[in-house]
Amino acid sequence: MSFSPLVDQLLESLRVLPGVGPKTAQRMALHLLEREREGGRRLSAALSQAIEQVGYCQRCRTLTEETLCSVCQDPRRDETSLCVVESPADMLAIEQAGGYRGQYFVLHGHLSPLDGIGPDDIGLDQLEARLAEEPVGEIILATNPTVEGEATAHYIAEHLVGREIKISRLAYGVPMGGELEYVDGGTLSRAFQGRQPFSRD
Amino acid sequence: MSFSPLVDQLLESLRVLPGVGPKTAQRMALHLLEREREGGRRLSAALSQAIEQVGYCQRCRTLTEETLCSVCQDPRRDETSLCVVESPADMLAIEQAGGYRGQYFVLHGHLSPLDGIGPDDIGLDQLEARLAEEPVGEIILATNPTVEGEATAHYIAEHLVGREIKISRLAYGVPMGGELEYVDGGTLSRAFQGRQPFSRD
Ligand SMILES: [Zn+2]
Ligand SMILES: [Zn+2]
Repeated sequence: MSFSPLVDQLLESLRVLPGVGPKTAQRMALHLLEREREGGRRLSAALSQAIEQVGYCQRCRTLTEETLCSVCQDPRRDETSLCVVESPADMLAIEQAGGYRGQYFVLHGHLSPLDGIGPDDIGLDQLEARLAEEPVGEIILATNPTVEGEATAHYIAEHLVGREIKISRLAYGVPMGGELEYVDGGTLSRAFQGRQPFSRD
Repeated sequence: MSFSPLVDQLLESLRVLPGVGPKTAQRMALHLLEREREGGRRLSAALSQAIEQVGYCQRCRTLTEETLCSVCQDPRRDETSLCVVESPADMLAIEQAGGYRGQYFVLHGHLSPLDGIGPDDIGLDQLEARLAEEPVGEIILATNPTVEGEATAHYIAEHLVGREIKISRLAYGVPMGGELEYVDGGTLSRAFQGRQPFSRD
């Protein structure tokens, strides 16, 4: 026995969500049907609306339902600085941290030759086209501090050699507020390599 | 800064799912928009279809899009035995365990005077009506082994006193396959109270 066909179909469909296995899908489906039909209706509509209308910013490739995202539309942003990130979530995290006032470029992933993900799949042709048109003086490579993110940053940096563009990478080191004993060895040795003169300010 | 309005709306809507906080909602929304639009479309459709079409079985009150659920439609099920459960998930668990071939009645919750949930809210009027019409000889109270489930079972049992119906409750005891040292004290003392003569079969 299982649930009725429409309930089973809902259960199955919920499995598309990351981290949702059979038990969680069942709990979600019953919760929606037993206690949250109004919320479920709103979710169905919001999902379909986002899927049909949200595309990519023509300039930075982040997710947006408009031609240009709010950052790219903002005339007060610095046009000479461009931050390259792997995902819209990374771009949001940097915006929420505050301080950075330049432009972005979203790769939607990283290079992964084994998975057949090459330079054009992460939009590097589009990045080149953008550099030809805009007065970018510095590119900040803010890909993830992972093997793939590193490799992608290196690939981009090498392809920009010869241009009049300063290339930088986010600083590596111990995270603020953490305790040293819980920081992994790789991060610690990077923090040693990148040590800075102590400032008394 | 946040995401675009439609992405933010999707994030908000996903919070209706149990156990989904802001971070998980963001991960889900980006996963759907970046990698699973087809799955997201199916989820939206399945959700809306289930919400609009799934109602309650007229006889046992489980979730179904038909007038009667598959158990209630099955002419081979024993009409004299009725198992009372709190939720459709409990009914499914009992069906999947196998062995029980009788009927069901789903309360969709338990008595909870403090939350204003009284007998009619869990369908006890409908249960009475059913007992007046059907040849039920035994009611198995399979509400949860919690304070509220117990109280609900007691309430139902008291209201059936005087009828020619045998009333039983699921056995309490140590779960199969577990190790005694990890069984909680309440369960252990119940298992002692309900100890059975040793069978050499
Ligand atoms: Zn943009
Ligand atoms: Zn039924």
